[in-house]
Amino acid sequence: MADNLPNCKQRGVKVANAGSIFSEDVADAAVGLLIDVLRRVSAANRFVKAGLWPQNGDYPLGHKLSGRRVGIVGMGSIGLDVAKRLDAFGCIILYTSRNNKPHVKFPFYPNIQELAAKCEILVICCALTDQTRHMVDKSVMLALGRDGIIVNIARGAIINEKDLVECLLKQEIAGVGLDVFEDEPNVPEELFELDNVVMTPHHAVMTEESMRNLYELVVGNLDAFFSNKPLMFEVMQV
Amino acid sequence: MADNLPNCKQRGVKVANAGSIFSEDVADAAVGLLIDVLRRVSAANRFVKAGLWPQNGDYPLGHKLSGRRVGIVGMGSIGLDVAKRLDAFGCIILYTSRNNKPHVKFPFYPNIQELAAKCEILVICCALTDQTRHMVDKSVMLALGRDGIIVNIARGAIINEKDLVECLLKQEIAGVGLDVFEDEPNVPEELFELDNVVMTPHHAVMTEESMRNLYELVVGNLDAFFSNKPLMFEVMQV
Repeated sequence: MADNLPNCKQRGVKVANAGSIFSEDVADAAVGLLIDVLRRVSAANRFVKAGLWPQNGDYPLGHKLSGRRVGIVGMGSIGLDVAKRLDAFGCIILYTSRNNKPHVKFPFYPNIQELAAKCEILVICCALTDQTRHMVDKSVMLALGRDGIIVNIARGAIINEKDLVECLLKQEIAGVGLDVFEDEPNVPEELFELDNVVMTPHHAVMTEESMRNLYELVVGNLDAFFSNKPLMFEVMQV
Repeated sequence: MADNLPNCKQRGVKVANAGSIFSEDVADAAVGLLIDVLRRVSAANRFVKAGLWPQNGDYPLGHKLSGRRVGIVGMGSIGLDVAKRLDAFGCIILYTSRNNKPHVKFPFYPNIQELAAKCEILVICCALTDQTRHMVDKSVMLALGRDGIIVNIARGAIINEKDLVECLLKQEIAGVGLDVFEDEPNVPEELFELDNVVMTPHHAVMTEESMRNLYELVVGNLDAFFSNKPLMFEVMQV
């Protein structure tokens, strides 16, 4: 997409994106996946629905979210929305991003290894670029540690999925919540049986409401274009 | 328990409770159940883990949490912790409670019918008493409406479970997240097959960390008792 911008400019094609209308839904999904992994919601739900509670007694305890150290990877509009939510849970928020952002009150770490070493949870919210491809690899997972949890609602290829499967199988991290995968819709089958893995089919941005908002945005921008008015969320083409 | 307090006082038995050391975990679990029901996390996770994504394509859209109207039933320490979290999601918070609480900034409704009519989500956080038993009945569910979602992390009998099963089967409400049931560990089997029902086995208070805190509190109170010091969270016996 970004590659075509000069081309669009040359031909006089106006380009707009969806602004931040998806950020809230993605941030909500990130928090939902995180609580699910830590507190074992999906796994406990399977347990109850299989009728095992009267038979087997109590389900194993989960882990506390409140007070935990969470590293946000990528502090754009989604990262900010995730941070705002987890701050209200009493989490301690740290972040990494291309640059230290003076308007962000949380401590900045220049690289993801350092960030991972300082926290127990990583929430991946950055764009997929040449720099971020496979950025979350085995070294980052080992820095995060055995109690570590990763949530990815960004793009699958930001994580080295082979390393991830290996660390999960060797219990070198504690669990993951994944909305995105390297080769969608194909998901590594090794993850199917693991209770500490919660997966959704790349629908963190998707709610009936966000789809309606997107539709309204597109129609509004077509109206604006044909009335020679400025577009909403027009992408600056340099 | 409360019935025995006069008895304890007469015999000089000191009584302490766990204060608010469980509130955070319960509030986290409530938010996790709510996001799970709205955004279909458990159901989508089953879908992915059954290998259905490559086969069936996209999973149905869920609903937006941010901006939704949430009624909190019971504004004690748990209700306050739930409100604080959902406020950060951009939810509009309303509440009912025995009394209007001047220190709470959210609008108060004197009864649950009125509250249910004004919102789309109810989170049950009140104690089980003669007044609250079966308080959430069919009339409340119908006031909440077809898009309505109920989360119960309090006590099972606050909801009329028969009415709940009926409203779910007739799609008179949109879904529920339940940590508690009337006749634990027995759960109505009609709920087992419903994707819009997420259930956990009465473990909202239970994390390894909260159990450790409770242990430390009990040991601390035994120490305090034998050193004639005041107990933590002593229950006033009137």
